[in-house]
Amino acid sequence: MSGRLFIVGTGPGNPAQMTPESRDAIAAATEFFGYGPYLDRLELRPDQIRIASDNREELDRAEAALARAAAGADVCVVSGGDPGIFAMAAAVCEAIDKGPEEWRRVDLRVTPGVTAMLAVAARIGAPLGHDFCAMSLSDNLKPWDVITKRLRLAAEAGLVIALYNPISKARPWQLGEAFSILREVLPASVPVIFGRAAGRPDERITVMPLGDADPDHADMATCVIIGSSETRVVSRDGSPDLVYTPRSFTGASH
Amino acid sequence: MSGRLFIVGTGPGNPAQMTPESRDAIAAATEFFGYGPYLDRLELRPDQIRIASDNREELDRAEAALARAAAGADVCVVSGGDPGIFAMAAAVCEAIDKGPEEWRRVDLRVTPGVTAMLAVAARIGAPLGHDFCAMSLSDNLKPWDVITKRLRLAAEAGLVIALYNPISKARPWQLGEAFSILREVLPASVPVIFGRAAGRPDERITVMPLGDADPDHADMATCVIIGSSETRVVSRDGSPDLVYTPRSFTGASH
Repeated sequence: MSGRLFIVGTGPGNPAQMTPESRDAIAAATEFFGYGPYLDRLELRPDQIRIASDNREELDRAEAALARAAAGADVCVVSGGDPGIFAMAAAVCEAIDKGPEEWRRVDLRVTPGVTAMLAVAARIGAPLGHDFCAMSLSDNLKPWDVITKRLRLAAEAGLVIALYNPISKARPWQLGEAFSILREVLPASVPVIFGRAAGRPDERITVMPLGDADPDHADMATCVIIGSSETRVVSRDGSPDLVYTPRSFTGASH
Repeated sequence: MSGRLFIVGTGPGNPAQMTPESRDAIAAATEFFGYGPYLDRLELRPDQIRIASDNREELDRAEAALARAAAGADVCVVSGGDPGIFAMAAAVCEAIDKGPEEWRRVDLRVTPGVTAMLAVAARIGAPLGHDFCAMSLSDNLKPWDVITKRLRLAAEAGLVIALYNPISKARPWQLGEAFSILREVLPASVPVIFGRAAGRPDERITVMPLGDADPDHADMATCVIIGSSETRVVSRDGSPDLVYTPRSFTGASH
């Protein structure tokens, strides 16, 4: 008899932004697989077991979790944000696709969550209020020329661009190069939002025009949102600026 | 003294998918502005007032809510899903941008939510597991030729495409036309997901290849997700197929 395999998203890291559905899934499981800092967000019972692994070992982790669920355990795979956005749900599906037949019979339950770009957008106004795309800037899993092609086409299409995994110690120059490419297509006045740790105590949200955008404002906990030509900044007395992309397309430019 | 203006997302419609943060915001407000069916999802107290309006009157609704908050009321503007994705947060920001100076001093608090595409993705696997875009197919607020250009560029970029507002009585042919355009760029075997009312009792999730995709499977409560050339379908004994887009770009095609 196969156990259940829950894949949950904890949301951006603020417990008030985790859904009751994810909380219930966590309560129902007994073995927890995930990147250590995401597992640290959970308050587990003494009978619940942690199996932490490194952030770059997603497929191994998915296989280990599936093996335990197939053996009858109630297992929970933990992602930050939403598990379907650059996270563990795709790794588990890939492991099922490539793995033994019995893994296809595991009772799989994915619970959605608030992904980072939504948390950042909520803190600054509504930058994702019109058509947008979400891309991972990591070239660990795809060639850099695919990324640059996508950036160009997305900007030409007029999509606001949310960048996940913008920078890391092993990938220090890619975000600066991405800004350079986007400056060839977009006006220098387009606002860029560096949304770090949105909703958490160490939150830091910074806005600057694309022409001045400095990659040093990003770290591994940052989601970077680059506006379109339509995105607007509203100054407010005594409060941070609002950034939003109007629901209507006007054809206006900066 | 200005009141507070909360802009909340109820999530996809399943109460277990609404965050505690949104629930707390709802408890703190006394006047509720929104489209009637979204207000119907809330369990309001006798002292909490409903002001329902039609789905196409977002800017009027935003202005009415801001006027009440500026007058000192604690107001809540209610969206389905996430308020920042094709919803009320952008309408409120636009009203502030165009409105009287005092609206800029309103204490604005946006709480993010689980947007429809995340709820649909969770029910089917991980179709949004790699780079993707979200577009509204409504040509009420932007020209149809902007939409077709974006569809083409997004497909050429290899982005999975999530379509909001795919169809309505007043817009009956646009989704079929969108499929025709995408068939010129993408293989006919690319999976298309019709995700209707994900997470609710009347949920209906249907998958078919782009070559056979029939717009009649969509209605106003549907989010349509069109895969990329990399998106894969995994058949399972006794369970619905899984659809996922691998984290790694392989350059493989259907």
